[in-house]
Amino acid sequence: MASRLSPRPEWIRSAVRAISPYTPGEQPKIKGLIKLNTNENPYPPAPQVLESIKQAVDGRLRLYPNPRAQRLREALARHHGVPADHVMVGNGSDELLALATRAFVEPLPVKGRVTEPAASTIQFWVPSYSLYPVLASIHGARLNPVALAPDYGIPSLAAMRREGAWDFKAALSLVTTPNAPTGRGYATATLASLCRAQDGVVILDEAYADFASEHAIELVRKMPNVIISRTFSKSYSLCFQRIGYFIGHPALIQALDGIRDSYNVNGLGQVAAEATLKHGAYYRANFRRIIRLREQVSASLIAEGFEVLPSQTNFLFARPPGVAAKQWFEGLRKHKILVRWFASEGLSDRLRVTIGSESEMDAFLTAVRRLRRRLA
Amino acid sequence: MASRLSPRPEWIRSAVRAISPYTPGEQPKIKGLIKLNTNENPYPPAPQVLESIKQAVDGRLRLYPNPRAQRLREALARHHGVPADHVMVGNGSDELLALATRAFVEPLPVKGRVTEPAASTIQFWVPSYSLYPVLASIHGARLNPVALAPDYGIPSLAAMRREGAWDFKAALSLVTTPNAPTGRGYATATLASLCRAQDGVVILDEAYADFASEHAIELVRKMPNVIISRTFSKSYSLCFQRIGYFIGHPALIQALDGIRDSYNVNGLGQVAAEATLKHGAYYRANFRRIIRLREQVSASLIAEGFEVLPSQTNFLFARPPGVAAKQWFEGLRKHKILVRWFASEGLSDRLRVTIGSESEMDAFLTAVRRLRRRLA
Repeated sequence: MASRLSPRPEWIRSAVRAISPYTPGEQPKIKGLIKLNTNENPYPPAPQVLESIKQAVDGRLRLYPNPRAQRLREALARHHGVPADHVMVGNGSDELLALATRAFVEPLPVKGRVTEPAASTIQFWVPSYSLYPVLASIHGARLNPVALAPDYGIPSLAAMRREGAWDFKAALSLVTTPNAPTGRGYATATLASLCRAQDGVVILDEAYADFASEHAIELVRKMPNVIISRTFSKSYSLCFQRIGYFIGHPALIQALDGIRDSYNVNGLGQVAAEATLKHGAYYRANFRRIIRLREQVSASLIAEGFEVLPSQTNFLFARPPGVAAKQWFEGLRKHKILVRWFASEGLSDRLRVTIGSESEMDAFLTAVRRLRRRLA
Repeated sequence: MASRLSPRPEWIRSAVRAISPYTPGEQPKIKGLIKLNTNENPYPPAPQVLESIKQAVDGRLRLYPNPRAQRLREALARHHGVPADHVMVGNGSDELLALATRAFVEPLPVKGRVTEPAASTIQFWVPSYSLYPVLASIHGARLNPVALAPDYGIPSLAAMRREGAWDFKAALSLVTTPNAPTGRGYATATLASLCRAQDGVVILDEAYADFASEHAIELVRKMPNVIISRTFSKSYSLCFQRIGYFIGHPALIQALDGIRDSYNVNGLGQVAAEATLKHGAYYRANFRRIIRLREQVSASLIAEGFEVLPSQTNFLFARPPGVAAKQWFEGLRKHKILVRWFASEGLSDRLRVTIGSESEMDAFLTAVRRLRRRLA
């Protein structure tokens, strides 16, 4: 066998060979580029947070971090008013979402009959976070993508039952709330009736909840099948350090905890997140600033002929006037402004624009006005 | 369903409910405790590495890190003389080992007949890294633990064929080399014949290779089924920041890369690892110091009546004289010295002792001499 130069295809699982990986937004290193494509926060972490991290950069780096991020878990529990056994920290919420597929969903057998399709089903709304179908494929689960209402709202239970597409026994349902890339928020009452009707785990992915007028953490206290997913990336300007967390019933948290990597959360990330929770006022001021600017930019875009969806997030999802959204995307890029354009059906007529700093949004709107004269 | 207060057991996969999680070594916060239980490096990262990390603690923390750790991958490729597409970086090598189970091994069906047991088999030597059976259980794979020779060596191919326990078609074989917790090194020639005989992926887990007299990276160039696993944790004093990597055939790397989390490696960890590679001399001096001390401590323990296995790692695996190893473990702990004792069969008569600093090992040997008068 020594002459064999390439791996045999069978060494890689057929399901894995078939996967189209998730495409993260570009991270180009172009000087002067304004990045409005990955929903990062335009403001740096609080100065005291940066100082706390620097203080921790010493000989302790040789030691393993706390395997359960214990102090951070306890601080998060206090922050949200839940017991610490309801909280689990991950290497970004992406890690936790992937763990959930493996904890709660039976992969489809490679050969043989599927006896309980619901036990193998991961379902989610379309459009929502484009990672979900990738996670489902990686796990070898049955995908159940269900279309949102035409206004991107969650249909009523009666409509869902009538249409029959939603599986009320699916092992895992993933709901981005507020939604991405639409920016639309959902009322807690709507989410409550969905979760209550579901015989299976529901993850409410609240990555953008700090920019919204309500969140649904109270549902964790009321229903044992609800997990709230949060992240320090967007609201707390910590994308670089990969800190996400789940809040849910301890039995679900324990199942997830049993299958994670032993030291899944890096030490300086734990330090950064702990320090962040001590400086809430700085971040809340940033949330307000971003929300205010979001409404201003939205109004300006509408004035330029864009159709802009109401947003409860730190981005806008807007249909540009005149030529195709893709041409707008390319035109903006020539002005060194990078926004996100999704090629997929139903999304390709819009642009997703992260709310950056005041000066970045000024530059964006200036470019929009110039392009409009040319394109629309 | 609103009155239901606990999750239904069926919401959690039966395989997940049955898992006994991996037990990491304790990380107690006892003042003055000497930690010789988790094989951490006693020396801090190089001062220039700490400085590079501090320099990076600024507004960039709001941005996502490079999703493929591109600069670090390229630096590692140069370091080992392989093309960059042979390298993949992970959130510690633990993440990469877990990914390998999911990329290369078909989980056993929950119901129904197993048609190809080898495709679902993860095999490893006993004793070796105790994480492997946990990873196999988490994935729902068939476990094939195979006993090493009585001297903890890898048996000859002829002996393996005669005994029939080793599955030469197993989808994934995991070999800790040098081994833990025994400390024993394996000749590259021995590993080469094992890998060449194997129709399936073999991971050579070289977490301790920097403390050994040889490593097996050349096998990656010769055989398409070999992956080398390395980590910055032990040799490069970076446990806290979770950086591990794989070197292997690009087709295997690509399969793993397609199923990892998009931003699996935290940004400050990438910065730290890149800086580390620029200061090799500092770390190589530490390796020599640890190896020298290892040999001195080994000789001292032998003089005290311990049976000490030859070690190619930064720890010793030793059978204490007189009373049971567990009593020694407890006695040392009373002297504020924490070593590792494994309750499992075949290991419970020994202690694993990490090589700490000169003063830590002096304190350890002083405690050993005191305890010996009492216990042996």
